[in-house]
Amino acid sequence: MSNRSQAIHVAKVRGNLRETVDDRVAVEEPLEIRLGFLQAGERLTQPVSITMRTPGDDEELAVGFLFSESIIRSMADIAIVKPCQGDNTIRVELEDDVELDLERLRRHFYTTSSCGVCGKASLDALHVMGAEPLETGARFAKDLLVSLPDRLRQAQAIFDETGGLHAAAAFAADGTIVAVREDVGRHNAVDKVVGTLFQEQRLPASELGLMVSGRASFELVQKALVAGMPLMAAVSAPSSLAVELAREFNVTLVGFLRGGSYNVYSGEERIDA
Amino acid sequence: MSNRSQAIHVAKVRGNLRETVDDRVAVEEPLEIRLGFLQAGERLTQPVSITMRTPGDDEELAVGFLFSESIIRSMADIAIVKPCQGDNTIRVELEDDVELDLERLRRHFYTTSSCGVCGKASLDALHVMGAEPLETGARFAKDLLVSLPDRLRQAQAIFDETGGLHAAAAFAADGTIVAVREDVGRHNAVDKVVGTLFQEQRLPASELGLMVSGRASFELVQKALVAGMPLMAAVSAPSSLAVELAREFNVTLVGFLRGGSYNVYSGEERIDA
Repeated sequence: MSNRSQAIHVAKVRGNLRETVDDRVAVEEPLEIRLGFLQAGERLTQPVSITMRTPGDDEELAVGFLFSESIIRSMADIAIVKPCQGDNTIRVELEDDVELDLERLRRHFYTTSSCGVCGKASLDALHVMGAEPLETGARFAKDLLVSLPDRLRQAQAIFDETGGLHAAAAFAADGTIVAVREDVGRHNAVDKVVGTLFQEQRLPASELGLMVSGRASFELVQKALVAGMPLMAAVSAPSSLAVELAREFNVTLVGFLRGGSYNVYSGEERIDA
Repeated sequence: MSNRSQAIHVAKVRGNLRETVDDRVAVEEPLEIRLGFLQAGERLTQPVSITMRTPGDDEELAVGFLFSESIIRSMADIAIVKPCQGDNTIRVELEDDVELDLERLRRHFYTTSSCGVCGKASLDALHVMGAEPLETGARFAKDLLVSLPDRLRQAQAIFDETGGLHAAAAFAADGTIVAVREDVGRHNAVDKVVGTLFQEQRLPASELGLMVSGRASFELVQKALVAGMPLMAAVSAPSSLAVELAREFNVTLVGFLRGGSYNVYSGEERIDA
């Protein structure tokens, strides 16, 4: 039980049997992320994203999102992170000396999504942002990979209550699960993990892999890339653009990781059979 | 085979066996939706959304999105819908007499997402938009409901190729599947279905139910509500806000619909056992 799930009455129908039972559903609430910054001698505050998320780890979500969007680069950029006006708004106050390209921010968020990627959705845009192919350093054992789905599932406390959450985890080559986070949104779960690593000053996380419970989309591979994580493994299928991005930037991409099997779409040299 | 999936070489690892095979992945590409309108005697064009989608049914996706966002209300609002500047941009040109609240549009899209809902993510906002609880008219048989997952799966041509797509379908009480669409994004699959109904001038679709392959989030229930669809059924779990929305606006919400079983979260009176 947790405040991330909510009690509910539900009619369960199984064949000819119908019964009303107490059940739980995953909580989904909007979170607004506001950015405070100094501009021409004046302190401004601007909303930059609203995302539907499962409450909890909101600060990690906010800083993980801002890092993934290349708005902040290190903890030194941040003066304060705190909830404001109730539980569903987080304010991230930047230090006075952080330069922010307001026009880029405006353009970016005008057409983009809380999903993070859509507004600059091209490989070109990533090149423009200065992303570089990841160097091949870290290696991960095959046995570790195939053990991940069960271990991720074991760590999914709220999923077990509700069946309604995605999960993401950062793991080390020795099998340590460094961080695991759950959310109704796949991108939020990853932002929470990245935000946790950010707060612990572990980025770029060049020795850690990222595991996600669902599919591998472009945006999720992008988040792994920006966080410097050399391997991303997904329980389900990757998309075409996820594969292209992974190949272009040398991210090891593993899909359909379940039941002791997996597919490798790029960077197989990082996996020790 | 279709241009919605793409051929790819992949290393498949099954236990101790590793082989390189030809496989297919679902195509993911950005789509920009641009809105053309008359403002103070001048024709303007403005991008309103960029979403990562699987190509195909792009016009349906664009008009379905704009309808779900309450930007257009009927086919009479639209002068032209056509691709522009290549395959990944759709321009929707409104008729001269369509009034558009530009400030609302700006505010809305400034903080919102291509997922459609996040920027006005509250039940209050829906009330403000003029949404009313749906009347209980249409009824759906239990036997029809439990048959839906298999039938949706049979209609998912690209899913079978790639394992990587969500699906949405509109269905009638007599079991007819009126429209079924696939996409890497859940919200896009629903927008494509809603857009198809919109183009066929079948909205509000007060006699049709909506089936989705994944979970039931707030935004998906919202799309069903705005389309006037009295029942939404999902293969997986609903979120707390999805349940609240369905209850408040009298949408029948069915979750965990698989293997002959399901849960009913609201509006059970529309289901004939």
